[in-house]
Amino acid sequence: MDTISIMRNLKGASETFLPNGMSSFKETSKFAVGILGSGDFAKCLAIRLIRSGHSVVIGSRNPKQAAGFFPPLVDVTHQEDAVTKTNLLFVAIHREHYASLWDLKHLLVGKLLVDVSNNVRINQYPESNAEYLASLFPDSTVVKGFNVISAWALQSGPKDANRQVYICSNVVEARQQVIELARQLDFIPVDMGTLSSAREIENMPLHLFTLWKGPVLVAIGLATFFYIYSFIRDIVHPYVKNKQSDFYKIPIEIVNKTLPVVAITLLSLVYLAGLLASAFQLNYGTKYRRFPMWLEHWLQCRKQLGLLSFFFASVHTVYSLCLPMRRSERYFYLNMAYQQVHVNIENSWNEEEVWRMEMYISFGIMSLGLLSLLAVTSIPSVSNAMNWREFSFIHSRLGYVALLISTFHVLIFGWKRAFEEQYYRFYTPPNFVLALILPFIVILGKLIVLIPCIKRRLRKIRKGWEKNQFADDTSAIVPQSSPERVTIM
Amino acid sequence: MDTISIMRNLKGASETFLPNGMSSFKETSKFAVGILGSGDFAKCLAIRLIRSGHSVVIGSRNPKQAAGFFPPLVDVTHQEDAVTKTNLLFVAIHREHYASLWDLKHLLVGKLLVDVSNNVRINQYPESNAEYLASLFPDSTVVKGFNVISAWALQSGPKDANRQVYICSNVVEARQQVIELARQLDFIPVDMGTLSSAREIENMPLHLFTLWKGPVLVAIGLATFFYIYSFIRDIVHPYVKNKQSDFYKIPIEIVNKTLPVVAITLLSLVYLAGLLASAFQLNYGTKYRRFPMWLEHWLQCRKQLGLLSFFFASVHTVYSLCLPMRRSERYFYLNMAYQQVHVNIENSWNEEEVWRMEMYISFGIMSLGLLSLLAVTSIPSVSNAMNWREFSFIHSRLGYVALLISTFHVLIFGWKRAFEEQYYRFYTPPNFVLALILPFIVILGKLIVLIPCIKRRLRKIRKGWEKNQFADDTSAIVPQSSPERVTIM
Amino acid sequence: MDTISIMRNLKGASETFLPNGMSSFKETSKFAVGILGSGDFAKCLAIRLIRSGHSVVIGSRNPKQAAGFFPPLVDVTHQEDAVTKTNLLFVAIHREHYASLWDLKHLLVGKLLVDVSNNVRINQYPESNAEYLASLFPDSTVVKGFNVISAWALQSGPKDANRQVYICSNVVEARQQVIELARQLDFIPVDMGTLSSAREIENMPLHLFTLWKGPVLVAIGLATFFYIYSFIRDIVHPYVKNKQSDFYKIPIEIVNKTLPVVAITLLSLVYLAGLLASAFQLNYGTKYRRFPMWLEHWLQCRKQLGLLSFFFASVHTVYSLCLPMRRSERYFYLNMAYQQVHVNIENSWNEEEVWRMEMYISFGIMSLGLLSLLAVTSIPSVSNAMNWREFSFIHSRLGYVALLISTFHVLIFGWKRAFEEQYYRFYTPPNFVLALILPFIVILGKLIVLIPCIKRRLRKIRKGWEKNQFADDTSAIVPQSSPERVTIM
Repeated sequence: MDTISIMRNLKGASETFLPNGMSSFKETSKFAVGILGSGDFAKCLAIRLIRSGHSVVIGSRNPKQAAGFFPPLVDVTHQEDAVTKTNLLFVAIHREHYASLWDLKHLLVGKLLVDVSNNVRINQYPESNAEYLASLFPDSTVVKGFNVISAWALQSGPKDANRQVYICSNVVEARQQVIELARQLDFIPVDMGTLSSAREIENMPLHLFTLWKGPVLVAIGLATFFYIYSFIRDIVHPYVKNKQSDFYKIPIEIVNKTLPVVAITLLSLVYLAGLLASAFQLNYGTKYRRFPMWLEHWLQCRKQLGLLSFFFASVHTVYSLCLPMRRSERYFYLNMAYQQVHVNIENSWNEEEVWRMEMYISFGIMSLGLLSLLAVTSIPSVSNAMNWREFSFIHSRLGYVALLISTFHVLIFGWKRAFEEQYYRFYTPPNFVLALILPFIVILGKLIVLIPCIKRRLRKIRKGWEKNQFADDTSAIVPQSSPERVTIM
Repeated sequence: MDTISIMRNLKGASETFLPNGMSSFKETSKFAVGILGSGDFAKCLAIRLIRSGHSVVIGSRNPKQAAGFFPPLVDVTHQEDAVTKTNLLFVAIHREHYASLWDLKHLLVGKLLVDVSNNVRINQYPESNAEYLASLFPDSTVVKGFNVISAWALQSGPKDANRQVYICSNVVEARQQVIELARQLDFIPVDMGTLSSAREIENMPLHLFTLWKGPVLVAIGLATFFYIYSFIRDIVHPYVKNKQSDFYKIPIEIVNKTLPVVAITLLSLVYLAGLLASAFQLNYGTKYRRFPMWLEHWLQCRKQLGLLSFFFASVHTVYSLCLPMRRSERYFYLNMAYQQVHVNIENSWNEEEVWRMEMYISFGIMSLGLLSLLAVTSIPSVSNAMNWREFSFIHSRLGYVALLISTFHVLIFGWKRAFEEQYYRFYTPPNFVLALILPFIVILGKLIVLIPCIKRRLRKIRKGWEKNQFADDTSAIVPQSSPERVTIM
Repeated sequence: MDTISIMRNLKGASETFLPNGMSSFKETSKFAVGILGSGDFAKCLAIRLIRSGHSVVIGSRNPKQAAGFFPPLVDVTHQEDAVTKTNLLFVAIHREHYASLWDLKHLLVGKLLVDVSNNVRINQYPESNAEYLASLFPDSTVVKGFNVISAWALQSGPKDANRQVYICSNVVEARQQVIELARQLDFIPVDMGTLSSAREIENMPLHLFTLWKGPVLVAIGLATFFYIYSFIRDIVHPYVKNKQSDFYKIPIEIVNKTLPVVAITLLSLVYLAGLLASAFQLNYGTKYRRFPMWLEHWLQCRKQLGLLSFFFASVHTVYSLCLPMRRSERYFYLNMAYQQVHVNIENSWNEEEVWRMEMYISFGIMSLGLLSLLAVTSIPSVSNAMNWREFSFIHSRLGYVALLISTFHVLIFGWKRAFEEQYYRFYTPPNFVLALILPFIVILGKLIVLIPCIKRRLRKIRKGWEKNQFADDTSAIVPQSSPERVTIM
């Protein structure tokens, strides 16, 4: 619904009437809301407030000019006037202009100010905008909120996009009132506690894939390393040794040697984090001691590592499937056929090579199938539809099975080659040998954790048992509690 | 949970008791709710109301017969009786039977009537059902709502399916009461303002992919045109010229020549809309003037255009991957091998052809990978989990990179062929030349918009600056505001 | 946000102040909440309660020891003390320890007890934990709820994971109060009626893909049968007859013969359920009589059957695409090329074989494309964004088209082979003949249902008409009502 039709509706709203018998209806908590500022956000907020039955007073420095910008039901007036008329005011102006409200300080005493501002960079100022506003007007009550909502979302309504609004304030009553107001405006308010959360709330719309940064950097690093490694072994080496020019392998074959190694390494990293967490818990003898920061971060971005692993595995699949389409493949076949006729071999069948390839492809498809299950169940609305037991079954058990199968995939690809000298060009081991290091470590670690005595101790620790303390036996340990989520996966 | 077990539960509810000390509990706003009508919807609504603690009075024209259809706790009575006993009544009867309530008019004075009806076609009647009901009973208060909820969703509870309920009324208090009731029934009420929104609400469950219609028609049109175009060039032309029968190409090869052209054209259309919007804004010198209707519609369905582009690109990928599986390919190979042996060429390697194909496939996979990222982040729950900066990064930056890479994909496919006469059959340019027109226009347009002086002016306009007016400097321009969303993507 | 920073925030909260003018603010319903138990869940619940402005009293059997475990604002005391101080108490202890509260019985009279416990197995005890608690303390009011929320979700806030909390109680007022409390803690409460629902709520977190079990068992059964069937026909038969060793076909070719048969059978089962439901309705002459249990279950898991069908079809696609990559394929080609040169055939082109394969692949891709649309629209957030008409269009119409096209896919694969004796090894029909049985039955059944007189009668029944009774004509039949959902799809 566009602005114009909304305005039309609002005109209709002024013709409301109260028939007899309505007196039995519940009293609603509608009141006059002030807005300081007259930009886009102020306009959209005003429209939304009026639609939900509030009256709105806009405080502008130039009310005559601003009036044309707002729908007719809105009272556009001077800032002083707006502050006098209302108890709850949205401060819809930039932080740089907060000082311009200084003259209104005596009027703002005891008023509730909702800071909706955003910054351009994360942690742009030493203190959050809301805390700065609170320091300027210590006799007013400041609530932070609504900043994650765009003017666009305010206007178009909650039919799409995110409806969550994060709210914080030091005064519980003020927070509650703004939470109630957010609910009346059809948003889902989230109580974030005291004003010290304002910085976190203000940073929210500025984050750019925070949890993805680490995993993406790791993936790019691994991809670069293995690409160069394969390039040296498969292109530089034959060129140096035999003047053989295999440069045509650069766009596809070398890339397709890099992708699977990165994919399996990332998948191993997902489960390595959980194993390290278990090791720390066994060492500490309690689950209540915090992990080192690097492990905390690692644990937090396992989902991202897993999804990147799936992405690399999928692209590897497409690259592999494209191999027979290539011209280079065609020429190889034709030349091979020529050779076979030339040396007169009626049947070139090589049972071992056939089996290796059939097994290798088969394991590859299986691990891709499992990884795609893991990926699909990572879609928020799909994972929300599962309970904790189901989620853990998919992401812990099936995940390990996927790792195991993809390890077999690599092992069968390697076959006997790992022990043939010709594959150790420039004295470097082949790609697939490097690819197996981390998966082997993770599978070994998992086997150790599955040893009965260690498993028992770990389970006790996760149920709240502590090495140096007696646990309170009557305390409820809800099965799907936090630390299991951290370490099982 | 099925109806029978719900009824059992309801029986249990009648054995409730109020222990001492409960007097300190908050008074709840439970009251008697009336329902006029005794169909499926009335039944499921009654069950739901009783489960949340309300008492229900059903007004039926034949209460004796209807009584067996409702759970035991429901009071099934005559319509007059139901109206007398309650202040809030759901009108769960068809619009055609509204007139049958005429006799109750004097009893309905001052009552709140909730119109839950739906129509069979969009805009079936000159006015909405709710407005018609309001005109019949001007002394009652009419609220529109609950029509998007099926009887099935009412009964099975909000565990699945959509929980949003759209509510409108001219009387704010009545609207608030129904909103509160919707919340008690575990739905998420959405306040849609005055009763003039009733038509929009009534049309909601009747829409059939409204936003998809335009893009799908465009895609089908493009696909038909390019299919016929390729058919004439690749099948009719060789048949006319050389009596060469290539009809076997109809199911796969011609289709696979059509799909990529449609895909890249649709992707260009996504970004062309944004560029045109920028051009209009530069021309108007303000962001507050509305775009022409056709551009508004185009801008609104960019997501659909993008998803269709991804769909065509994916199907193109599958078709391409199937090429080596075909028998025709096998016979070509065998005949080529025969020829190679016959003319005794030991090595048929053609370095240029090899490179063209390797590069071509490589760029194709890359653009598919990027498009699949765009598609995944279009899943509602995934895009809701991103903030506006992240969404814009994916859909604006990565989208343009995908367009650029797929343009390279086509360019490399074309290679030198665009300049060879043999590809201009019937004097028509080859497919890939046509495929490049729109992408080139879009990339050129984007480059123009990126020229510093134009970029600066556009940014100023989007921050609220107007050519013919001084902007109110203190107004808050929230970074992720509306018009940027319109034009950046 | 981690526990430590939350605790810091909580300290900040104690420095709140109430400026002048706040007296006009709405009174909030904050009160003291008691928690019996001092485990993880108790701790996270306490933190969450305090953040939303409540005061918390922990009742522990060993308060001195437990105190260090809770944030400073929490009042950790003896159980007796906690019960005396508060009216609403969370019972965060295991069911086995409920009896330990026996001594407090006189103090618990009139108190509201919220049972948050979970079990380890489904239906572990004869009665639900909440009903057991209610039987122990008949003079207290027991509310079940919050058990589906993990301590982890409580602590980290509702930014991720499921926010729905299921609540039931025999006392409506008590239920309402806990519902309101859940809302204050930022959860979405779902009213589940009386305490008899407690068992259902307690089982919720213990379910392990309940709706998936049947379909997965059917799929595994079908896959096993068809794998063995193909193994005997394609490997045992040539070995027995001609001592031909085709064991290399085990990992890929036999699997790829099994997958498509399972996929199309599962897809037929989806629509067979709906047809059977129509047949029952026609037979009963009413839609109000319940289907037999086995049909109810079958109808409920159609989505799962459809998704499994898509999974098998996708894996079948990947297997098929991998075929040309195999070494066995390479050797076949080379040997064929050798033969062609040997017997001196210049052109081995077989027009019929070419057409069969092109058509066969083409139909396969089309049905995969349609199935992927069905799969994508099954993602909860995507299907929620559609109205009932759109959902039914995709899952009923497009679904039948997909079934039809995949039937053609199989038919063309069969071509004339179904009538050649050589394909009836061991007197068994080939796979594709078995694969066609169910689709043929379903398509035939659908055609029967589409016969005008039957279609009319079915539509009447679904609108509420009954063979043995006159329907209430004025009752509202909302178009998207329940039983249509059951049978159309």
